Amino acid sequence: MALKIQPLSDRVLVEAQEAETKTASGIYIPDSAKEKPQKGKVVAVGSGKKDHKMTVKVGDTVLYGKYAGTELKLDGNDYLIMREDDILAIV
Amino acid sequence: MALKIQPLSDRVLVEAQEAETKTASGIYIPDSAKEKPQKGKVVAVGSGKKDHKMTVKVGDTVLYGKYAGTELKLDGNDYLIMREDDILAIV
Amino acid sequence: MALKIQPLSDRVLVEAQEAETKTASGIYIPDSAKEKPQKGKVVAVGSGKKDHKMTVKVGDTVLYGKYAGTELKLDGNDYLIMREDDILAIV
Amino acid sequence: MALKIQPLSDRVLVEAQEAETKTASGIYIPDSAKEKPQKGKVVAVGSGKKDHKMTVKVGDTVLYGKYAGTELKLDGNDYLIMREDDILAIV
Amino acid sequence: MALKIQPLSDRVLVEAQEAETKTASGIYIPDSAKEKPQKGKVVAVGSGKKDHKMTVKVGDTVLYGKYAGTELKLDGNDYLIMREDDILAIV
Amino acid sequence: MALKIQPLSDRVLVEAQEAETKTASGIYIPDSAKEKPQKGKVVAVGSGKKDHKMTVKVGDTVLYGKYAGTELKLDGNDYLIMREDDILAIV
Amino acid sequence: MALKIQPLSDRVLVEAQEAETKTASGIYIPDSAKEKPQKGKVVAVGSGKKDHKMTVKVGDTVLYGKYAGTELKLDGNDYLIMREDDILAIV
Repeated sequence: MALKIQPLSDRVLVEAQEAETKTASGIYIPDSAKEKPQKGKVVAVGSGKKDHKMTVKVGDTVLYGKYAGTELKLDGNDYLIMREDDILAIV
Repeated sequence: MALKIQPLSDRVLVEAQEAETKTASGIYIPDSAKEKPQKGKVVAVGSGKKDHKMTVKVGDTVLYGKYAGTELKLDGNDYLIMREDDILAIV
Repeated sequence: MALKIQPLSDRVLVEAQEAETKTASGIYIPDSAKEKPQKGKVVAVGSGKKDHKMTVKVGDTVLYGKYAGTELKLDGNDYLIMREDDILAIV
Repeated sequence: MALKIQPLSDRVLVEAQEAETKTASGIYIPDSAKEKPQKGKVVAVGSGKKDHKMTVKVGDTVLYGKYAGTELKLDGNDYLIMREDDILAIV
Repeated sequence: MALKIQPLSDRVLVEAQEAETKTASGIYIPDSAKEKPQKGKVVAVGSGKKDHKMTVKVGDTVLYGKYAGTELKLDGNDYLIMREDDILAIV
Repeated sequence: MALKIQPLSDRVLVEAQEAETKTASGIYIPDSAKEKPQKGKVVAVGSGKKDHKMTVKVGDTVLYGKYAGTELKLDGNDYLIMREDDILAIV
Repeated sequence: MALKIQPLSDRVLVEAQEAETKTASGIYIPDSAKEKPQKGKVVAVGSGKKDHKMTVKVGDTVLYGKYAGTELKLDGNDYLIMREDDILAIV
């Protein structure tokens, strides 16, 4: 299902994923980390800003900080809309 | 009815909408989100700034943060005037 | 009566108006808004800055935030001197 | 008497004037304003900065905020040295 | 084992090393320092930003502040993802 | 005696002078000012920064804020090293 | 002994020196100064940033603020790694 949503500026819409004990690339998200990064899939990407060309693409799996973004909910899934600069890495 | 109001700089005038349980594009605005985004329709758009070309257009439905903007009231409807950078996405 | 005053930089001198229940363009200034915008008429305009060309003109009616600017008083009317960026919209 | 003092950068030396009930241009400085602007005469002007060309000239009467600048005293008069950006208007 | 992870922007993924009493270059990390720098090996490097070309390379041993970065865990090793500007030196 | 010291960047080394009741140019430094400017003689001047060309020269007498700079002592005299932007005026 | 360490960006590695009562150039570091500058010898210098060309060289004796930098220890000597902008002067 395609989402009809266009993030503004350098924002990215991310579908949060359940925390797993081991990811495909073998990365563990630890339980006791002082600030646990979260994992999600990119669902929509803004067009960027004059001094910020977007790097992530729809379909990328990304890590981001625990308090990044603003929550949305769609069909029972959790979405977050955040600035690309809040994304730590593509895994 | 056309509003005779010209937002200054990179500001946008938004007509707040009643929270719905499900939008046309299927997006739910959750009750319990720590910071609930709000939805509204763009009524007037400023001319931007030298380093900020406006993206939203009159008639767009937009999401924005709960504390974004300054309130106005017109004919019983709620308006908000906010900077475009406070707008999260066009839906 | 012409005022002999030249606002510096990107500042604007505004003559505050009595709050009305309904303006010419039909905009209500609500009583209970968390931050009520104020209305006034532009009386004098600074020459701007290198990176800020002025938009408002003498005679414009403008909306601005409740705490914007510094108060002056002249012949019983209230004046405010504020930066143009504190002005929300021209009505 | 000419003062042998050269304000640095974008600073202005101002000789504070006694508060009057009515100025030549008819402006009252109110008693009860939350932040009363002060009035004074420009005595010396810095050479500006690369991105700030000076606007006020020696002899101008200016308004400035109550807490602007640093105090100096000369022959019983009050002087203030402040950045030009602390000056609100030329009257 | 190659890690399938691409740090975003000017971020660097670092594998934390056990604190040693003496490094190859003879540097001691003191016990009682007010802010102990940490040592680790660069595992992955972002592509930088328009105004920030990356300096560190995969395989470099780096020193960084005690509170730098966000923790990840992989196969029992500690990883940190941090901005390159949080890296103090290459040893 | 020439001091062998080169202030870095836009810093200036100033030899503090005893407060006088009246300076050569007739300026009094008041006792009760909320923030008393200090007077001193410029002893050494940094080479400036890319966007800050130095204005003061060795030998200039300058005024600066009470809390400006970092103290040094040499042969019983007080020195201060401060950024040129902390200097208010040349007298 | 040459140290195998490369400070990143605009950082400088400094070997702290014992406080002396009188330096070669006759500068005293006072006991009671509110913020005592420290003295040290430059041991390694970063390559600078796009908008910051390095000024200090290996071998320079420098003054820096009491709380500048992060501590390292090597063969019983104290090292500090700090940004060049934390260095006050070359003596």
